[in-house]
Amino acid sequence: MELKDLGEFGLIKRLLAGQTRAAGVIVPPGDDAAVLEVTAGQRMVLTCDCMVEDVHFLAKAQGYDVGYKLLASNISDIAAMGGMPRYAVVTLVAPVTTSVAWLDDLYAGLRACALEYGVAIVGGDTSRGEKIMLSVALLGEVTPGRELLRSSAQPGDLVCVTGPLGGSAAGLEIVLGHVHPPEHLVREALACHYRPRPQVAAGLLMASLGARCANDISDGLASEAHEIALASAVAIEIDSASVPQTAATRFIAQAVGKDPLDFAFYGGEDYELLFTVPEQTWPAVQAALPAACAVGLVRAGHGVFVRRGESLLPLARGYTHFR
Amino acid sequence: MELKDLGEFGLIKRLLAGQTRAAGVIVPPGDDAAVLEVTAGQRMVLTCDCMVEDVHFLAKAQGYDVGYKLLASNISDIAAMGGMPRYAVVTLVAPVTTSVAWLDDLYAGLRACALEYGVAIVGGDTSRGEKIMLSVALLGEVTPGRELLRSSAQPGDLVCVTGPLGGSAAGLEIVLGHVHPPEHLVREALACHYRPRPQVAAGLLMASLGARCANDISDGLASEAHEIALASAVAIEIDSASVPQTAATRFIAQAVGKDPLDFAFYGGEDYELLFTVPEQTWPAVQAALPAACAVGLVRAGHGVFVRRGESLLPLARGYTHFR
Repeated sequence: MELKDLGEFGLIKRLLAGQTRAAGVIVPPGDDAAVLEVTAGQRMVLTCDCMVEDVHFLAKAQGYDVGYKLLASNISDIAAMGGMPRYAVVTLVAPVTTSVAWLDDLYAGLRACALEYGVAIVGGDTSRGEKIMLSVALLGEVTPGRELLRSSAQPGDLVCVTGPLGGSAAGLEIVLGHVHPPEHLVREALACHYRPRPQVAAGLLMASLGARCANDISDGLASEAHEIALASAVAIEIDSASVPQTAATRFIAQAVGKDPLDFAFYGGEDYELLFTVPEQTWPAVQAALPAACAVGLVRAGHGVFVRRGESLLPLARGYTHFR
Repeated sequence: MELKDLGEFGLIKRLLAGQTRAAGVIVPPGDDAAVLEVTAGQRMVLTCDCMVEDVHFLAKAQGYDVGYKLLASNISDIAAMGGMPRYAVVTLVAPVTTSVAWLDDLYAGLRACALEYGVAIVGGDTSRGEKIMLSVALLGEVTPGRELLRSSAQPGDLVCVTGPLGGSAAGLEIVLGHVHPPEHLVREALACHYRPRPQVAAGLLMASLGARCANDISDGLASEAHEIALASAVAIEIDSASVPQTAATRFIAQAVGKDPLDFAFYGGEDYELLFTVPEQTWPAVQAALPAACAVGLVRAGHGVFVRRGESLLPLARGYTHFR
C-alpha cells in the first residue's frame, strides 16, 4: 500500500491510532493546536530538528530507525539545556508513492523513543513533496536558574563528556559495508548509530550539582567545543588521550584505516553531552555520572586546541551544511 | 550570492542579525533550545504547519510572501484555539544554490508577520535538500477553560465566520494570470492571497464572550465544517446565500467562469475563523466582531449540507494531500 491509497486523513488517522493521552495534555491531536498544562514554577524550553532523505538518511533506511533518531536528536537538545522533554509536534513531508509500511515503521520508532523518554506527540502537519522530510519541534521544561547554557563556560572549568564518542560514526562504517567486524562489535556499533541515548538524566543531574554549561554532541566534539568557545568567549583545550572511546569504535576505525579520534571529533550524532564544570564541582558530578570523563580545560583566550602528546594544535571545526 | 557561498553558520548569523530580545525569552536563539518564561495560570497551545516548494508555492514566489504566509498560517491555528501566539521555531530546508537574497526576503516576511502579531522567533534548524521546505512550530498561551475546541459544537448553535471567504482563491486566479480585473480589485485580491490576517483578536474575544467551538479556515469552508461536524458528532447546515464574499471575489470568479461559492467552500487559505455560538450568545459576539456573519446552523445528525434556494445538498469535503 502506498501513501496515495491512504490519503491525508487516512494517514493522520493511522498515525494517531492507539495513542494514549499523556499527563498534562488537555486537548490531544485532532484540533488546530494541542493544549498543554504546564508545571507552575517551570520555564519552557523549545527546539526543533529536521531530517531530510538523502542528507540525513537514505531511502532504504528503516523507518523505525529514522523516527527513533529524529526524536532522540530533539530530546538531546532539551537534555543539553538541563531540561525535561515533554511535548512534540511532527512535520512529515513525503511522496505520494511512499510505502505505508515504511510510514508505520517511522511512527513506531517515533513512538518508541517518545515512550522511553516520557514525551507526548501532540500534533503535526503533513504534506506531499518529492523527498521525505521530517521535522520535530519539542517543548520541554526546565527549573529557573538550572539552564545549561552554551555561553557560561569559564576559564579554569574542566571540559567533560558524559560518555564514549565516535560510536555513531563507527556504526556508519558498518552500515556502509566498509568493514565486517565480529558480531558483538557490529551489535555495539549499530546500537550507537541507530539508538542514541539522549542524556536527559545526566543533564538534570549535572544542572542540580552546579554545572552551568553544556552542548549536546550532534555534530562532533570539535564543532560543539567551537560553539561553546565562541559563545563563552573562551579557549578550549582538549587532551586527545582523555577522549573516551569504546573498543568497538577503535577496532572499526583501525579496520577502515582511520584515526578513531576523527570519529569523536567529526563523526557526530553521538548525543552525549559536552559540558564544563568548576574543578571543585567535578568530583560530585563524576560520582553521580560514572560514565563521564574530563577531557580538557577551559582557558582564557579563544579557539579550540587539541593536545596530542607534546603538541598543541588548533582543532578544525568540521562539517557544516550548504558548503 | 547563493546559499553555498554563505554556509550554514553564515546563514544562521544572517537570519539572527538585528533580532531583538522579546519579553519572556530567557535564552534567545543560539543555544540548544530557547528558554521561555510562561505566564502563570495560562495553558500552552502548540501547533506546526509546513510549506513545500511546488506544493504550497512556486520557486518564483517572493520569499517575503512565503515567509509571511507560513507564519500567518501557524498564528491562525493558535487563534482558532482562542489562544495568544508567543514563540516560534523555524525549520528551513533549501538547495545549496538558493539565492541568499531570496532567503533574506523570506526571513523579512517571517519577521514582519512575527512583529505584527507579537511572536518571537526563538530558534530553528537548517539543512540542505533538493527543494525548499519550511516548517514552523508555534507555541501560544490560552486561558484555562477558554479553549475553542473543534469538538464542542452543539445542535442549535449558530455557525458563523469572522469575515469574507474565497478572497485568497480569487487572488490566486490573478497570480496565475487567468484574469486581469481593474487595479483596485487586483490590489484587494492579492492582499487576501498574500497577506492573510489571522484572527487572533477575534478568537480571544469570542472565547471571552462564550463561544466554545472554532476552526481556522485554511482548507476551505467545506473541509473545516466537515472537521467540526465529525469532531462534534453533529450535522452542519450552511446557507449559501449567507456566505460573505467581497465584490472583488465575486467579480474575479465570474470573470474566470467559476462559482464564487466554490472559492469559499474549496479555495482555502482565507484564515478567517469558522465558529459556532449558542443563539443567545450571538448578538454579543456580533457586536464585538462587526465583520462576523452567521452562515448556518448546527443540527443533530452528521455530515455537512448546503442550502441553495429550496435545495439542501450534501457538501463534499474537497482537497486533501497525497490522493
